[in-house]
Amino acid sequence: MIDYRSDNTGRAAPEILEALVRANHDTALGYGADEWTAALQQRFSDLFETAVRVFPVATGTAANALSLAAISPSWGIVYCSEAAHINTSEANAAGFFGGGLKLAPVGGEYGRVVAERLGETLAGVAPGQLHRGQPAAVSVTQASDLGTVYSPAEIRGIAEAAKARGLRLHMDGARFANALARLGCSPAEASWRCGVDIMSFGATKNGGALCDAIVVFAPELADALAVQLRRAGQVWSKMRFASAQLLAYVENGLWLDMARSSNAIAGRIAAGLAGIPGARLTAPVEINEIFLEFPGAVMDALEADGFGFYRRSKTLARFVCRFDATEAEADALLAALRRHLAPAAARAAE
Amino acid sequence: MIDYRSDNTGRAAPEILEALVRANHDTALGYGADEWTAALQQRFSDLFETAVRVFPVATGTAANALSLAAISPSWGIVYCSEAAHINTSEANAAGFFGGGLKLAPVGGEYGRVVAERLGETLAGVAPGQLHRGQPAAVSVTQASDLGTVYSPAEIRGIAEAAKARGLRLHMDGARFANALARLGCSPAEASWRCGVDIMSFGATKNGGALCDAIVVFAPELADALAVQLRRAGQVWSKMRFASAQLLAYVENGLWLDMARSSNAIAGRIAAGLAGIPGARLTAPVEINEIFLEFPGAVMDALEADGFGFYRRSKTLARFVCRFDATEAEADALLAALRRHLAPAAARAAE
Amino acid sequence: MIDYRSDNTGRAAPEILEALVRANHDTALGYGADEWTAALQQRFSDLFETAVRVFPVATGTAANALSLAAISPSWGIVYCSEAAHINTSEANAAGFFGGGLKLAPVGGEYGRVVAERLGETLAGVAPGQLHRGQPAAVSVTQASDLGTVYSPAEIRGIAEAAKARGLRLHMDGARFANALARLGCSPAEASWRCGVDIMSFGATKNGGALCDAIVVFAPELADALAVQLRRAGQVWSKMRFASAQLLAYVENGLWLDMARSSNAIAGRIAAGLAGIPGARLTAPVEINEIFLEFPGAVMDALEADGFGFYRRSKTLARFVCRFDATEAEADALLAALRRHLAPAAARAAE
Amino acid sequence: MIDYRSDNTGRAAPEILEALVRANHDTALGYGADEWTAALQQRFSDLFETAVRVFPVATGTAANALSLAAISPSWGIVYCSEAAHINTSEANAAGFFGGGLKLAPVGGEYGRVVAERLGETLAGVAPGQLHRGQPAAVSVTQASDLGTVYSPAEIRGIAEAAKARGLRLHMDGARFANALARLGCSPAEASWRCGVDIMSFGATKNGGALCDAIVVFAPELADALAVQLRRAGQVWSKMRFASAQLLAYVENGLWLDMARSSNAIAGRIAAGLAGIPGARLTAPVEINEIFLEFPGAVMDALEADGFGFYRRSKTLARFVCRFDATEAEADALLAALRRHLAPAAARAAE
Repeated sequence: MIDYRSDNTGRAAPEILEALVRANHDTALGYGADEWTAALQQRFSDLFETAVRVFPVATGTAANALSLAAISPSWGIVYCSEAAHINTSEANAAGFFGGGLKLAPVGGEYGRVVAERLGETLAGVAPGQLHRGQPAAVSVTQASDLGTVYSPAEIRGIAEAAKARGLRLHMDGARFANALARLGCSPAEASWRCGVDIMSFGATKNGGALCDAIVVFAPELADALAVQLRRAGQVWSKMRFASAQLLAYVENGLWLDMARSSNAIAGRIAAGLAGIPGARLTAPVEINEIFLEFPGAVMDALEADGFGFYRRSKTLARFVCRFDATEAEADALLAALRRHLAPAAARAAE
Repeated sequence: MIDYRSDNTGRAAPEILEALVRANHDTALGYGADEWTAALQQRFSDLFETAVRVFPVATGTAANALSLAAISPSWGIVYCSEAAHINTSEANAAGFFGGGLKLAPVGGEYGRVVAERLGETLAGVAPGQLHRGQPAAVSVTQASDLGTVYSPAEIRGIAEAAKARGLRLHMDGARFANALARLGCSPAEASWRCGVDIMSFGATKNGGALCDAIVVFAPELADALAVQLRRAGQVWSKMRFASAQLLAYVENGLWLDMARSSNAIAGRIAAGLAGIPGARLTAPVEINEIFLEFPGAVMDALEADGFGFYRRSKTLARFVCRFDATEAEADALLAALRRHLAPAAARAAE
Repeated sequence: MIDYRSDNTGRAAPEILEALVRANHDTALGYGADEWTAALQQRFSDLFETAVRVFPVATGTAANALSLAAISPSWGIVYCSEAAHINTSEANAAGFFGGGLKLAPVGGEYGRVVAERLGETLAGVAPGQLHRGQPAAVSVTQASDLGTVYSPAEIRGIAEAAKARGLRLHMDGARFANALARLGCSPAEASWRCGVDIMSFGATKNGGALCDAIVVFAPELADALAVQLRRAGQVWSKMRFASAQLLAYVENGLWLDMARSSNAIAGRIAAGLAGIPGARLTAPVEINEIFLEFPGAVMDALEADGFGFYRRSKTLARFVCRFDATEAEADALLAALRRHLAPAAARAAE
Repeated sequence: MIDYRSDNTGRAAPEILEALVRANHDTALGYGADEWTAALQQRFSDLFETAVRVFPVATGTAANALSLAAISPSWGIVYCSEAAHINTSEANAAGFFGGGLKLAPVGGEYGRVVAERLGETLAGVAPGQLHRGQPAAVSVTQASDLGTVYSPAEIRGIAEAAKARGLRLHMDGARFANALARLGCSPAEASWRCGVDIMSFGATKNGGALCDAIVVFAPELADALAVQLRRAGQVWSKMRFASAQLLAYVENGLWLDMARSSNAIAGRIAAGLAGIPGARLTAPVEINEIFLEFPGAVMDALEADGFGFYRRSKTLARFVCRFDATEAEADALLAALRRHLAPAAARAAE
């Protein structure tokens, strides 16, 4: 199969697993009191150009839900995009870890929250109203769940609208590396310098193996989160094996190299689509994801050809490029689309 | 340092990390829909001689808390030993995941629940009483947190007392391998055949790296648990890397070999202690843990000699043997104890 | 002020307070083990023509949230109308008491769930999907939050769609009396005979004072709910004073008399509106609520005249008739609307 | 029956029900935005000689659990007496509303926390320890669950030990009036002036009917609590009927008169016991409760005589005096005890 189903169906970067294996010597205190985890704090503080606290966690769902629980009381409302992973795909983990906090979709485009719409929504909430819960936080997904990227200015606008009302800002960075690779700016510019308080720092979708992380920019949040993570079953006693993965992930820019590569493959496919009639991109291709509308019969044909992808609806397919997807795979997909779509378009044109 | 601080300060078994690395090829569906996780179901069903469902999780705390939440309503009471890890060391994760369920210690000896005491406690709870919550489950720790082992008959007695009142039985098997190595019975005989409904299957403390598991014997519990695990952030999208670890853990009896080895080192130390005056075992040494009472000044001396261990109180030290602890390390500890304790005993005898 | 703001701004029926005062003699066991609460079980079982369990609670929010928590696991999805009070006005109490359960709006009309739309929604949920949570229950509001009434056949259709997938059915009966008064059928026909498992039985909005109730039709739900209510702080130790209110509420058909009266006043207003240009009903007037669209300037004028009502938007006003609203009040409102709207309409027609 | 079973088996003070009935006129905004609730804020602020926020709630369990949830994060530890009602009798409501917070008993005498023991316990908790949760609050019960009273100095000592570690102080004042009547000090001296941050203000046990209250002394806690109460189903839409009860409860010192009366009856019984052999008080009688040890056969005889009381164990009975208990009832109990105990003592002396 040529697999475009997701970026989490793929392998891990060999460098990451090698680092994990290299960490297997001597003894070390448990629950994060080891030298790898200490080095991780320093390494990420350097990377983000500010003192951060980094907490490795098993999954992005844990990172998101526990981050939101750290910045919202249980009676809080967390605003996010309708398409946000936290809203559509995490079994309401945020509601669970947050003790009943409520996610409230805010309008936007291509999976992004728009500052103006957020501002309008907040303007409609009377201070002190009891019946709906209290606005508490905003969550943005960078890159978005429809494969688009916020500019730092857009994030800053959202942060301003949020903070004018005392709300905190969370970034779901499951594909943060892909967003950075697109933006070409520094991690700091795309996060705390735009007002992000806490971040789900994804690795799994971009060549990671068994961990993601929470990066805390607002230092007053960190101590309580440490306890909450412990009771949430997210603190490995042999934490070194998680921290070693995250250290390797960012070592020598590996993470950005991998993101650039998967973005480039997606870009190659998007460029090639221009010459193919009968398929329509439903969102701009800005990272490693392609949302493409074309007839269901062609989906059947592609699957028969051995391509894997995700059917979002009968006529909308999602293709995701892994960090190790190849140009040959991209060209094979384009050829197959051309092969199946051209006759379909010709028939439709008759 | 010669490290007796815990069995989670140690390395992982190289076989386990090698299996993880070997799993890094091709693509596979996420969230457990991969071939490694399918093989894991079969492998553990063979191991336990019955159809089980196995869910890899990041930590023993997650395994315990989510198991208990699966067998108790949020208004339930879960009986356990005063010394149980769930009661003393997991930041009330059970109360959190269980929506406010309450742990209630039951008397026993050496960290074990005693069936008679459990029966008496339950006899004192009127059916339908509202004010204290409803008895829902019992949790036993095998081996116990004081390093002792339940016989299958003891577990069965507890299960009978529990089930006579409609309570479920959970086993915290963080050191299940060590208990099995001691008992010499089959995994089935020590678990579901004694009435265990659900089990935290530990690997980390016995040479594992980044995962433990929940093993479900009562099939009606499994589907709901699968959803709960997803929202608890315990379902890796690249699950293959967890399942591969667990497959390697039990392959060719590795787990039992490691447990036998760490038990043997502890046994060697316990045997050697017989000839050393001034130290007193506070619990029988049945697995890889030694609870030893001796003067604080001798603790200082041992630390100065480069031994690591855990001070439970000013005069009680815990020594835990890792799977790769050596006879030389055991003999070194005995020699140091002899060296420091003999003069102390002599002084005391004067 | 002539007060149309809500049916909870009003007085209580004097009969209900008199009953409360009459209950103030002798001693009685606490927490519902008194003779009034026993009589309530019998009285409501007679009323509903089946053995029910009745639990008095302080508020409708408690009734709704605890009912839903009784029929959904914490990872459950509860389907309801977008306009449902549980979704818009109870500060996500359902999510809180339900440990993170999620409300999911289903399309419909005038605040009602439509069986076909529910069926389609459920058809789109794959059994065993983990990422969104598990469908668990449906909640219908009778009468709806837009003042309309389900026929028993409509409820039955929803129940069938729900139960085909194993979902439970809850009815928020905050205005159940008003719905019954409209339908002219028996309490049984409008509840369990249509498949309702558990019901929030409202009294407060219809002349009650300090309590509503949960009525349990599915007997297997009742014992656990009793414990949950105790810990939810909803079991008065002097329960007699709550049960006496509920007994008086249904005595000699008081509840239906009051509902008929408030419905009739709303009907009188609706009839009178027919001759007044410039105002538009946005939902049929089937109970005691009127949703009326007219210019904001006229709202200002009405308020200046001393009428109270609720502004849902700049051009949509809600008028609610209390059980003791009078025909004179209705006629005064109609006169004022006529006075302010006719010139406005004339101006608009020029 | 002469009823000593509890102070919640009794009637309500007629003045309170009369006030409730008097409040039944005109319309008023719902959910606490009425004039009675506004007056309540002022009246209690006068009573406590500081600006307080008062939230009427349905039950003492709600008052306790929601107060604790307001001063502890979900990973917090709340220290209390082993005998505290929150620990023994509220179905772990604190754990539920607190999202899994944990109650930890601290040693003391007669149901009271002792400052020194609390200090020692806290000294044993390392700052930043993750495994047990974080110390968050202390709860004292005034009067205690064994019928004894803290002096203001004792409360102050506890507050100092707590606040030295950043913990908040809650008072469960289910029998606060009885304690005040005993102490003879002002409400302020017995609460916030000793360091109490938030208080469950009981009325039900002392002649109330259907509500207790939370009194907030630390103003920064109040706004969030208001939202939490709304979603907890503790905000009546017709709040006036609750606030009117609480206003009447304290009007003209009614509450203290009632407490003095029930205390006096208990004191009369205690005094009379001095001359009766064979019964032993297990705690000093300082308010309206008597804990008396005597043979089970005598308990049977008392019940046969028509006395009601609560059997705490086979040889320990609790007698509680209601606000309207009479001297004749006290004398009848003494006579019966004398009648049954003297022969028993004589037999024992043979």
